[in-house]
Amino acid sequence: MPREAARVRDIPTLIERARAGEARAVARLISLVEDGAPELPEVAAALAPYAGSAQVVGLTGAPGVGKSTTTNELVRALRAAGRRVGVLAVDPSSPFTGGAILGDRIRMQEHTGDPGVYIRSMSSRGQLGGLAAATPQAVRILEGAGCDVVLVETVGVGQAEVEIASLADTTLVLVAPGMGDAIQAVKAGILEIADVFVINKADRPGVDNTYRDIQGMLALGERGPGEWRPQVVRAVAVRNEGIDDVVAAIEKHRAWMTDSGQLTVRREKRAAVEVEAIALGTLRARMGSLREGTPLSALAGRVAAGELDPYAAAEELLKTL
Amino acid sequence: MPREAARVRDIPTLIERARAGEARAVARLISLVEDGAPELPEVAAALAPYAGSAQVVGLTGAPGVGKSTTTNELVRALRAAGRRVGVLAVDPSSPFTGGAILGDRIRMQEHTGDPGVYIRSMSSRGQLGGLAAATPQAVRILEGAGCDVVLVETVGVGQAEVEIASLADTTLVLVAPGMGDAIQAVKAGILEIADVFVINKADRPGVDNTYRDIQGMLALGERGPGEWRPQVVRAVAVRNEGIDDVVAAIEKHRAWMTDSGQLTVRREKRAAVEVEAIALGTLRARMGSLREGTPLSALAGRVAAGELDPYAAAEELLKTL
Repeated sequence: MPREAARVRDIPTLIERARAGEARAVARLISLVEDGAPELPEVAAALAPYAGSAQVVGLTGAPGVGKSTTTNELVRALRAAGRRVGVLAVDPSSPFTGGAILGDRIRMQEHTGDPGVYIRSMSSRGQLGGLAAATPQAVRILEGAGCDVVLVETVGVGQAEVEIASLADTTLVLVAPGMGDAIQAVKAGILEIADVFVINKADRPGVDNTYRDIQGMLALGERGPGEWRPQVVRAVAVRNEGIDDVVAAIEKHRAWMTDSGQLTVRREKRAAVEVEAIALGTLRARMGSLREGTPLSALAGRVAAGELDPYAAAEELLKTL
Repeated sequence: MPREAARVRDIPTLIERARAGEARAVARLISLVEDGAPELPEVAAALAPYAGSAQVVGLTGAPGVGKSTTTNELVRALRAAGRRVGVLAVDPSSPFTGGAILGDRIRMQEHTGDPGVYIRSMSSRGQLGGLAAATPQAVRILEGAGCDVVLVETVGVGQAEVEIASLADTTLVLVAPGMGDAIQAVKAGILEIADVFVINKADRPGVDNTYRDIQGMLALGERGPGEWRPQVVRAVAVRNEGIDDVVAAIEKHRAWMTDSGQLTVRREKRAAVEVEAIALGTLRARMGSLREGTPLSALAGRVAAGELDPYAAAEELLKTL
């Protein structure tokens, strides 16, 4: 009981320290998001006024395409330009262990001594609504802590990751020559979400084919007058080549977003996804999710045995809410 | 009104024709699943008694790893063994266009003249609860149509795809040499879901490293006595090499699942995911999802403007249900 009270009283102090840019307070707040802590509504309420102060940049692409290296070099370039930078590396947590793998983040420790950079891998082990809810909340914390730019890097190209990346103000899609043809990119639904394509590892054979494929697909897309045409930039992140071009493309998109009014549209969509995810998470918890001994578990047993169809079971389940 | 009545009356006939193995009736029923048609509860009720008659095999792996080719060769091998086979290629639909890309499925048309094979790409454009709900329903239809084996192939390695694949009785994870190291596989959470690893393109350099990496990671996993140790099989699907070994590994896993009682456990979990997804989809539709002019849309505008925090908005939203 006293411990609970202490934790609750902590929140205003934590927010204040995070606002002052103290990394440990930021870390603590993001952990609350990851864990789906009961204090989150209080955190969210305290941070609401700072919404929208940071530029949010999403990065996605297939495993092995060089996302971590590119993020690392972008951080370096943005720091050189005097921007405060937050990085959220969103790892889809294993459905069974809930663990996020940090292996290739170790390289980023070159930035750990820099108070102008905050880097964090994030999973969604306890969060109601999963990463769709957790990511915007973590962004909100980094905004509150004074980051000018928040990079959200997602692992993988599944629909969930694509959706998270697409919630950014500007979405970078990384591809690499020889990692499957352009059709594979379309399959994963990433063509539509890319504001900027980065062809990384552009010193590899096949880079011209990759470039041509992407431009060809972009030419097929219908685009009204004044609509954004995705930029295609070549880079070799591991040698820090082309990173300035990536930064320039991000800035160009940002200016277009602001001028066209699309920035507000996209941010409202991001808020809608977040609110919906929190609401659905609450409902899911009430239904008992997939735990044993809950109404859902009992209904599932009857469906598996062929005694009940899943729609009838879902209807029964909704009655228990 | 008469058209509506005609559609509803159709269902028992469609089921009967699908039960008789008529491909067009099967196609029609799966389209109903994709579209989230109002007749789905009726379809589900009619098919409930046939639940569990097919062996469900999931296939997943990064884009470019050779999933379509491997599926194609598995179909050939299973047909040679006299099994009736259904294939569901689950493409994560683009979040914006809802379209599924069928490009590399064309090769599979070698099986189109064979009445013992039913192949279908599936998206989830209208389905409440997305592919998590749609896939088990489509499996149910193929079971009802007399398939002995249903192969569920998912594109991508995102959490959503991993979850879909993991709902199978047996889950194959495809990897290839030189497509990113083993850590990338762990990141995507696929290590835990694999019952059988298939190292495809095993004629490429680096195959021994890939094999050793996977075995190394498997050695780290804690496994109780009598638990399944994932099999690792090498194949060159494009030359039909190693496919018999893959089939043998699937059979071995199937026997273990049955003997250990895990088959029932996994199938109940599959049913729980399906029922929960349908229930959440219903609730999502009631909240107005992300459409303009709904309570959610209005609340999101206030969150984006910093007037309201997302938890308070979610609470408001739940009151509208």
